[in-house]
Amino acid sequence: MTRKSSAFVPHDLARPLAGAARGPLAGLTGAIKDMFDVKGERTGGGNPTWLAAAKPAPRHADAVKRVLAAGAAIVGKTVCDEFFFSVTGANAHYGTPANPRAPGRLPGGSSAGSAAATAAGACDFALGSDTGGSVRVPAALCGIYGIRPSHDRVNAAGAMSMAPSFDSIGWFAATPGVFARIGPVLLGGRSRRATIKRVALATDAWAQADAEVAEALRAFLGRAASALSALDDTVVAPEGTAAWRNAFRIIQGREIWAIYGEWLERRQPALGPGIAERLAFAATVTAEQARDARRVMAAARKAIRARVPPGTVLCLPTVPCVAPNTDADAATLDDFRTRVMALTCIAGMAGLPQVTIPAAQVGGLPAGLSFIGWDGADEMLLELALRLAPYCGA
Amino acid sequence: MTRKSSAFVPHDLARPLAGAARGPLAGLTGAIKDMFDVKGERTGGGNPTWLAAAKPAPRHADAVKRVLAAGAAIVGKTVCDEFFFSVTGANAHYGTPANPRAPGRLPGGSSAGSAAATAAGACDFALGSDTGGSVRVPAALCGIYGIRPSHDRVNAAGAMSMAPSFDSIGWFAATPGVFARIGPVLLGGRSRRATIKRVALATDAWAQADAEVAEALRAFLGRAASALSALDDTVVAPEGTAAWRNAFRIIQGREIWAIYGEWLERRQPALGPGIAERLAFAATVTAEQARDARRVMAAARKAIRARVPPGTVLCLPTVPCVAPNTDADAATLDDFRTRVMALTCIAGMAGLPQVTIPAAQVGGLPAGLSFIGWDGADEMLLELALRLAPYCGA
Repeated sequence: MTRKSSAFVPHDLARPLAGAARGPLAGLTGAIKDMFDVKGERTGGGNPTWLAAAKPAPRHADAVKRVLAAGAAIVGKTVCDEFFFSVTGANAHYGTPANPRAPGRLPGGSSAGSAAATAAGACDFALGSDTGGSVRVPAALCGIYGIRPSHDRVNAAGAMSMAPSFDSIGWFAATPGVFARIGPVLLGGRSRRATIKRVALATDAWAQADAEVAEALRAFLGRAASALSALDDTVVAPEGTAAWRNAFRIIQGREIWAIYGEWLERRQPALGPGIAERLAFAATVTAEQARDARRVMAAARKAIRARVPPGTVLCLPTVPCVAPNTDADAATLDDFRTRVMALTCIAGMAGLPQVTIPAAQVGGLPAGLSFIGWDGADEMLLELALRLAPYCGA
Repeated sequence: MTRKSSAFVPHDLARPLAGAARGPLAGLTGAIKDMFDVKGERTGGGNPTWLAAAKPAPRHADAVKRVLAAGAAIVGKTVCDEFFFSVTGANAHYGTPANPRAPGRLPGGSSAGSAAATAAGACDFALGSDTGGSVRVPAALCGIYGIRPSHDRVNAAGAMSMAPSFDSIGWFAATPGVFARIGPVLLGGRSRRATIKRVALATDAWAQADAEVAEALRAFLGRAASALSALDDTVVAPEGTAAWRNAFRIIQGREIWAIYGEWLERRQPALGPGIAERLAFAATVTAEQARDARRVMAAARKAIRARVPPGTVLCLPTVPCVAPNTDADAATLDDFRTRVMALTCIAGMAGLPQVTIPAAQVGGLPAGLSFIGWDGADEMLLELALRLAPYCGA
């Protein structure tokens, strides 16, 4: 079988999975990150050794079943970072999906192929997952819509885990109505409706963005002012997010190692640059470190949630910079990761929903604007994205 | 009112037009070229003098009514070339819509803002019109899907005309399922279903494309081979398309002048570069020239249709090059127009449907691939686009 494009895995579906004849997604096509089980297919998680060892899945992942039942077809499986442990989108085994909106630049990860396929118009939407930014980052860098739902609102059955305390199944779409229509199909659990009455700019997050990114996103806010509720300022992390990010990293390491550590030690798979180092770090995290980190997390969660009561959303740049070049060196990518996680850890630590919209461009490269809502605000964030869409562009 | 982005006209809708609660497009949002009537609003056709003289429309255009009844909201009116008389997308009065996929490059026209808004994710789809390429060209240059339907399959009531012998109401979408779903909403008249058994590459059209454009599009055909029917070669215009293009130009000039000439002479509106010259040419076309040109058209129509019997589609580059720079000089734009029209006049002269898909990129810039079908093949072309979508990208 020929490979569709760099967004799709070489071990792709032989043929599309047909959706139901009727339903809210009838006639639409989706792609799925290669972490969702498809009955009879092996699930790869970005690593060929894992793929080779995998058994054919006994059934579809819950999210796959839902989109098929809603009428969408699934046309392919997409490339992701190995074990979802990166935000760059580079995969040393399958190649890095080309970013259709930023030639020569990384697509962002880990749900890289899902974002790239959607941005290229290869499908109408795509499923991904977000632990530390894996939907939000590639959506922003590829210039499309993406959501990290409230923790646990989308059933993760049949999807590979990374760090269950943070894992959230999300999705991408290139356009706002399709983006919003996926909501009722995938969102379970508790929806908490409240009119958005306050949009609070997280000034500390904005201060971390490159000047031209902040400027382009502020221009968007200026255009969209009439469609936004009262804008004001807040500080989301008065002491900075470094301690949160560090706690995130420790808990994430502890959890991913609990899931994959034994297998990794036994199989010693080839791992791409960065991934190997991060997994080596994960192996060293002690139970005590994790316990301490969970205390930091509990406090962070309380502090962040206090700033986002129902009716208030936080507004911040999704990513503080544009996409790095595909040939960026390790130090540049480390710096990128650190800067990105300083912003993405906020919703991650708090288990809150976040949407990113393709608000603006910076020198022709996509820049995403994010809104973080209260627990269960997912539907309100999708409606907000729909309302703000006509102001996206340049 | 603030302006949404450069894709939308300054005299935009004060608020979105709500769609029906149910229907195949429920929850989706559309934008419309500023040539479609909206009840109570003035329609501009890209020229401020025309806008100022216009009376508020007594009712919605038929296409607007249809998409609203199908459940879509209409979120704005988009910038177009004056009187639809250009394929560049430059508008001297309202500014040129930014091409979201090709920074610093023209979006293509005349349905420039509709393509740009769709490519930016500002809406799920947009309506345009195509006389000499005005949907196909901006779709290709902005990296999205576009269709010029079979002549007269979409009701043009309430839409401004350009050259009725060629005018065809079409649409844009960034993703394939949305693109296909608009079909049943807008397409009336005679559908003629037949399985596509042959894809004939119009080698004479391919020969006119820049080498790197042809190469990127051929790479797409290679990837997509398993999803395509038997590929072979044909020559669509053994004597070249220069005579067709010239006949097209004469008939177009005669018809646009018949519609707008009297008003233009009386009002002497300010007109942007290129537009003024083409309208001045239109004023000179004689009845005899038009009569001769119609004879050429009749012969061309017969010859082209003979090459596209039901079951066969012609495949060719939509545009032979990438988007010109926004500051390209007049000579460059003239050359661009001539090269573009050599390809777009084929379906235009024959009244046949053509879809363009965002098949590939050339140095990061979008390149569109086109399929021309038999009269009434519109639905089959939309299905073909859906089938080929997963191969789009890089």
